[in-house]
Amino acid sequence: MYSIDLNSDMGESFGAYKIGGDDEIIKYVTTANVACGYHAGDPMVMDRVVRMAKERGVDVGAHPGYPDLMGFGRRKMVLSFQEVKNYVKYQIGALSAFTKSYGVQLHHVAPHGAMGNQCQYDEEISQAICEAVCEFDKDLIIYYCAGAVLGKVAESMGLRTAAEIFVDRAYMDDLSLAPRKMEGSMITDEDYAIKRCVRMIKEGKVTSMSGKEIDVRGDTLCVHGDGPKAIQFVKKIRETFEQEGIQIKQL
Amino acid sequence: MYSIDLNSDMGESFGAYKIGGDDEIIKYVTTANVACGYHAGDPMVMDRVVRMAKERGVDVGAHPGYPDLMGFGRRKMVLSFQEVKNYVKYQIGALSAFTKSYGVQLHHVAPHGAMGNQCQYDEEISQAICEAVCEFDKDLIIYYCAGAVLGKVAESMGLRTAAEIFVDRAYMDDLSLAPRKMEGSMITDEDYAIKRCVRMIKEGKVTSMSGKEIDVRGDTLCVHGDGPKAIQFVKKIRETFEQEGIQIKQL
Amino acid sequence: MYSIDLNSDMGESFGAYKIGGDDEIIKYVTTANVACGYHAGDPMVMDRVVRMAKERGVDVGAHPGYPDLMGFGRRKMVLSFQEVKNYVKYQIGALSAFTKSYGVQLHHVAPHGAMGNQCQYDEEISQAICEAVCEFDKDLIIYYCAGAVLGKVAESMGLRTAAEIFVDRAYMDDLSLAPRKMEGSMITDEDYAIKRCVRMIKEGKVTSMSGKEIDVRGDTLCVHGDGPKAIQFVKKIRETFEQEGIQIKQL
Amino acid sequence: MYSIDLNSDMGESFGAYKIGGDDEIIKYVTTANVACGYHAGDPMVMDRVVRMAKERGVDVGAHPGYPDLMGFGRRKMVLSFQEVKNYVKYQIGALSAFTKSYGVQLHHVAPHGAMGNQCQYDEEISQAICEAVCEFDKDLIIYYCAGAVLGKVAESMGLRTAAEIFVDRAYMDDLSLAPRKMEGSMITDEDYAIKRCVRMIKEGKVTSMSGKEIDVRGDTLCVHGDGPKAIQFVKKIRETFEQEGIQIKQL
Repeated sequence: MYSIDLNSDMGESFGAYKIGGDDEIIKYVTTANVACGYHAGDPMVMDRVVRMAKERGVDVGAHPGYPDLMGFGRRKMVLSFQEVKNYVKYQIGALSAFTKSYGVQLHHVAPHGAMGNQCQYDEEISQAICEAVCEFDKDLIIYYCAGAVLGKVAESMGLRTAAEIFVDRAYMDDLSLAPRKMEGSMITDEDYAIKRCVRMIKEGKVTSMSGKEIDVRGDTLCVHGDGPKAIQFVKKIRETFEQEGIQIKQL
Repeated sequence: MYSIDLNSDMGESFGAYKIGGDDEIIKYVTTANVACGYHAGDPMVMDRVVRMAKERGVDVGAHPGYPDLMGFGRRKMVLSFQEVKNYVKYQIGALSAFTKSYGVQLHHVAPHGAMGNQCQYDEEISQAICEAVCEFDKDLIIYYCAGAVLGKVAESMGLRTAAEIFVDRAYMDDLSLAPRKMEGSMITDEDYAIKRCVRMIKEGKVTSMSGKEIDVRGDTLCVHGDGPKAIQFVKKIRETFEQEGIQIKQL
Repeated sequence: MYSIDLNSDMGESFGAYKIGGDDEIIKYVTTANVACGYHAGDPMVMDRVVRMAKERGVDVGAHPGYPDLMGFGRRKMVLSFQEVKNYVKYQIGALSAFTKSYGVQLHHVAPHGAMGNQCQYDEEISQAICEAVCEFDKDLIIYYCAGAVLGKVAESMGLRTAAEIFVDRAYMDDLSLAPRKMEGSMITDEDYAIKRCVRMIKEGKVTSMSGKEIDVRGDTLCVHGDGPKAIQFVKKIRETFEQEGIQIKQL
Repeated sequence: MYSIDLNSDMGESFGAYKIGGDDEIIKYVTTANVACGYHAGDPMVMDRVVRMAKERGVDVGAHPGYPDLMGFGRRKMVLSFQEVKNYVKYQIGALSAFTKSYGVQLHHVAPHGAMGNQCQYDEEISQAICEAVCEFDKDLIIYYCAGAVLGKVAESMGLRTAAEIFVDRAYMDDLSLAPRKMEGSMITDEDYAIKRCVRMIKEGKVTSMSGKEIDVRGDTLCVHGDGPKAIQFVKKIRETFEQEGIQIKQL
């Protein structure tokens, strides 16, 4: 029997600005990566998402990003080790106030956007994130993009990890995500995207942008909650997985 | 034997911007109210202040403010109950990540600036703050300006409280702080300021701006850490209090 | 022959956050109030909206607000006269860089949200805004909510003005807008909303929330560009106005 | 007769946060690079600095930076061409509102911090800045670090330029500034710093960090306005230059 966790980035709205269909998507996922007010999210949004997650038994993780609301945390910033560490710690702490209030155990940490991308190769940033997590709570699981150095760093520091694979993002040969600006980086054909997922889960294989067959192992599958078709998409994933004998469940 | 806690607002620097002589003032106080990144402070600053507080055995409290860095949290903003509650909760949580990292117990919550001033009369804001604290940690002490409705609200909700008196701020007849813009609101004569403190502590009396004798009771005395003479001032307070038989100690 | 200017708040997106259907709504309005990066908007958004306005011959005005992105400028902030004046001036200047680049003459200034609401009664804020405008460019027209003191202040300072009326916002007896939180403040029945507009324009009368008939005179009609039905709504306004002999044209 | 312009970064305070002795330093410089609210500065500060500059006949230039107040614009951000262009344009426009109000002609643009450093080699960023300037006002002078590619790009686009040399920053062999974190990058011995300046101006030579003699040509000399000794330093520069027959005057 195959099984996988289903996660989504959530709580990325900000004030009057709405991104993502949190209210709907939360019905279909098993874990939520909640933005913490730096690249997105605000205390009202965080409170709301954590409450919804509690009601539905969805695990809550922190989704820290760079302090760049204007760039949605997707722009690389050259920060020092201590800056990354303390910015991540701040954000985890801020979110923990809401999980604590609702009697929910904070579950994991999944770095967002440019910070997440840099964890593909950058040991220093990976270590800064893991030190923040270790000092805050050694039981938090590190979600890392399958193949990223962050996974190895986290494990070497004694943290539990979960390799994340993506429904709709194409891979380079080294299992890094194809940059958003590259043509074909976003997989828009849903049937193909889901078939690709099933293959990743069952066979541990995926075809890269260059056509190469590469090994991949995923503990958790990331689906996006924004876009007009997000909900139908995640429903279809659930249906297909059921038919394919892939159980969707928390880690 | 008289005794009083000595607190100071700290961690109000931001990035390259320095406010207050945290490194010096921390040697003389017993508790620190640490800014949490909304009206002032950033994760680097918070980390540093909490570490210093840990080293010196100074108790750490959260000093949440309005999300108005440009106004240093001193400008009234008309927020909803839920906004105040969630903004305060966010800030306490963010700071708690640093206290937790250093193995320090978060000690109290002292609202800053305009938010603090509104707690003089505004029951709704007071209640929003206290609900945030209750849901996060019922053991946190609420620091409130002596005479403010916040104290009553906190006590009615079962929270412990500490009445705060001020070394260098003049009082109105109802024990509210004279607005910063009012002439004479800031007491600049140090000897007079300290004598006034001693009288507040020993006799429970203070002379208001209008010349009226009013009752006042303080558990904690707030000194300011900025200004060129802040350090000499707090040294003088310590000397005078020793001569006067007023013990400076944590609550 | 009746005539009226048709304006809409635009450029209120921010980074990855989209608000309003600027690309569509700009086809139907004659003037655009463009957010300037304080309550909403960013330089990328401003550039884009000004370019579109240029292409379509739509007049561009500045839509300055309070520095409160988290509250979308809808929350009252207590600022000093100089703060309001300089914040408005900064925002007008920032927008003018884009109009200047596209060879467009900046046309007007329409205060946003809480700042706009305060101009209903507050002479000091109104004067601060008008001083900023006078010192920057005496030819800019002040858009003010019909009935607001801002109109009188602007005229007393020699500025040209345009009284703004609203399609979908209910009025109080004194012609101030019913607060958003009040039930019935947003008019959702489109046919009623448009009929009400026609009557305001032709008869100079509107029925207030309390049922009172009040006098109203409008030079410009504000339509909202967000909401799923915004485009159909503005199309219907154009159709109805044509039938009713109300010409839509710039001031 | 030798001559040079003397400039300083100014207006870098923010709200309650003060950086630099603007009130004093303005007495000694001939041009001011004024921060525009992104990496530093706010409308109150900008208004004040421009007014002082007007009173003293000091030329005012824009000092745009990255939108990173927490990092004071000193941290590299990976932005797109259009983002750099529009962010710079926004900031120049914002400042121009204040120069226009005081009847002052905006004089130049000098990129700040990480943005400025990237102009050493990065043609794309240099071009983005110059396009913003060209579209806003072709008469603005581009201040660039002597040796930086920004100078060549600006000239190729028909803009006037001024090469900037630094009193207290050490040079690498290619005339780029030694990174702040490198030991010896900040020249603290005032007499040596000033002698070095005189030699740069008279002989067109400077000794790099590695001990190499390199050619350098400067039109404007940058002095820093912060630090406790800034004022004495700039006074000493003026005295020495007078003795050395170097005239301090605007471009």
